[in-house]
Amino acid sequence: MNAPLKNDLYLRALNRETVERTPVWVMRQAGRYLPEYKRVRAQAGNFMNLCSNPELACEVTLQPIDRFNLDAAILFSDILTIPDAMGLELTFETGEGPKFGKPIKSRADVEALPIPDPNDSLQYVMDAVSTIRRELNGRVPLIGFSGSPWTLATYMVEGGGSKDFSKVKGLMFSDPHTMHALLDKNAQAVVSYLNAQVEAGAQALMVFDTWGGVLSPTNYQEFSLRYMQQIVEGVTREADGRKVPITLFTKSGGQWLDLMAKTGCDGLGVDWTIDLADARKRAGDSVALQGNLDPSVLYGSPESIHAEVKKVLDSYGDAPGHVFNLGHGIHQFVNPEHLGVMVEAVRELSTRP
Amino acid sequence: MNAPLKNDLYLRALNRETVERTPVWVMRQAGRYLPEYKRVRAQAGNFMNLCSNPELACEVTLQPIDRFNLDAAILFSDILTIPDAMGLELTFETGEGPKFGKPIKSRADVEALPIPDPNDSLQYVMDAVSTIRRELNGRVPLIGFSGSPWTLATYMVEGGGSKDFSKVKGLMFSDPHTMHALLDKNAQAVVSYLNAQVEAGAQALMVFDTWGGVLSPTNYQEFSLRYMQQIVEGVTREADGRKVPITLFTKSGGQWLDLMAKTGCDGLGVDWTIDLADARKRAGDSVALQGNLDPSVLYGSPESIHAEVKKVLDSYGDAPGHVFNLGHGIHQFVNPEHLGVMVEAVRELSTRP
Repeated sequence: MNAPLKNDLYLRALNRETVERTPVWVMRQAGRYLPEYKRVRAQAGNFMNLCSNPELACEVTLQPIDRFNLDAAILFSDILTIPDAMGLELTFETGEGPKFGKPIKSRADVEALPIPDPNDSLQYVMDAVSTIRRELNGRVPLIGFSGSPWTLATYMVEGGGSKDFSKVKGLMFSDPHTMHALLDKNAQAVVSYLNAQVEAGAQALMVFDTWGGVLSPTNYQEFSLRYMQQIVEGVTREADGRKVPITLFTKSGGQWLDLMAKTGCDGLGVDWTIDLADARKRAGDSVALQGNLDPSVLYGSPESIHAEVKKVLDSYGDAPGHVFNLGHGIHQFVNPEHLGVMVEAVRELSTRP
Repeated sequence: MNAPLKNDLYLRALNRETVERTPVWVMRQAGRYLPEYKRVRAQAGNFMNLCSNPELACEVTLQPIDRFNLDAAILFSDILTIPDAMGLELTFETGEGPKFGKPIKSRADVEALPIPDPNDSLQYVMDAVSTIRRELNGRVPLIGFSGSPWTLATYMVEGGGSKDFSKVKGLMFSDPHTMHALLDKNAQAVVSYLNAQVEAGAQALMVFDTWGGVLSPTNYQEFSLRYMQQIVEGVTREADGRKVPITLFTKSGGQWLDLMAKTGCDGLGVDWTIDLADARKRAGDSVALQGNLDPSVLYGSPESIHAEVKKVLDSYGDAPGHVFNLGHGIHQFVNPEHLGVMVEAVRELSTRP
């Protein structure tokens, strides 16, 4: 039996309730900008060892909660665990980013892909979720997550990161049937993966569509959004008598917030290239918004960080439904004290009397 | 005395006149995807040798015109010629992108920057312009170009390309006065550089704001758009009794087309992440639009290229003021025959009876 939740600001804001102050968490909050993270990372030996060790994954998940008193914890893991469990052989070489030993090259490769059982080859993730939930002891909610089907497909077809997405777009334009077969398998795998995370203790969900923004509007709808819709419709939306909110985040997707809101999700992540007042107008009143400070603001002075936080809060205005965050993951060379300045500014400026 | 212009479709489309078919050219049309380009590039030894040799720069400028009968030629050069002429010591190492030996690190560095005389340290560019104009012999108009002040500043402060723009954004957030001093110098240098290009024979101008899209809306207006406005107001808009149109292109700037149109420019470049019908609505009727096929479409089959070209033409519709182009530079691994398919499709599908 898990402890009752002491701080549910994040869940209430996603439910668009009026809250006493704007909740704040940070994408990639457990990461290389923290010296305590780097110590555990060195102990683990490599990144995947850290992801696959539930005790160490729990330790790094809690570090930023301990240091900054953030309002949500997010599972420490990687979006590429699913394709790895499908047999694509994920490795991370230092300074090189992720690589797949067996990338997708043909229709036959897609047909041969298994949909992983999350309580088998992905059990290590579920163990991390339940360990973190237990150790959080009700302090703040735990967010589970996955990559979007399209974003996973970019890595699976390119064999790693890419600058121009030539292989995955070549496949999309020349053989859309195979592309859809791959995306459908990814969507099925993501649904079962996220549901297992909820089963293991995740109290909210997030889908990261890091590369949806490299598509044209029609291709975005056909090859990315459609499969996120499938996820929203397929995942568990309630656990322990409480709603499990799901947030979608397409980086550089500010122009599509109206379409994204129609999926029926609870929250939308927003990057800093759109003003939150405009984002609010486009997204409508059915969803909460998460964002959207430029992560590079944290390279500036404490005074400028305070001023930029104020701009973000002011641009959202007084309406309910705002979760403060960066517009993308925190950079590794940021001074952790600057993140502390940001968090304090959010608390100070958003507290309602 | 230069030859009279035989094909002025591009100039008329930018002037929003009704034309017999949609003009087409391609960003980076003289480039590594062409075997004939690679031969000349090898002969030159390195990239800057090619830029600084007017005969060779002319030869590669004309190659795609000869091969595809495109409707405009663009000066073969690099956006970083200006900071190089300011003394920042530009080099290109194979596979590494541009590097500056003396990047901008302080207010004193900015104050020490000279504004280059285009007919002195940049005379090689003007010689290339006049050589190309002569050799074009009136076939199609010649486009001169520059990087935007903000985009130049990103390379000058980062010392080369960047993934997260930490140095230039750190400067922008912590010392905006120094940032503005740098941008003002860049804008002055760009105006005198573009005016010298018109003097040497350029018949249209384009400003590439490759990195404006990494800014928030307010920072974009303050640090990028404001200086493009200064350029639009400062450049020669007529030569030989004919308008010299100027086109602004902010990559990922689709949400700001209304603001960009207000600068008084003639055309706006649009990438593929916005539908041209929406772009048209946002930009209004005072400007022409250039774009916006996803360059990755050229990795697809000839049938899919034809279908995607049709989508772009249809999304613009029958109104005047469309210049067909990719939404970004052509990729180096594209099969040149696929570009031929694209050009033929534009001709076939856009010809008015």
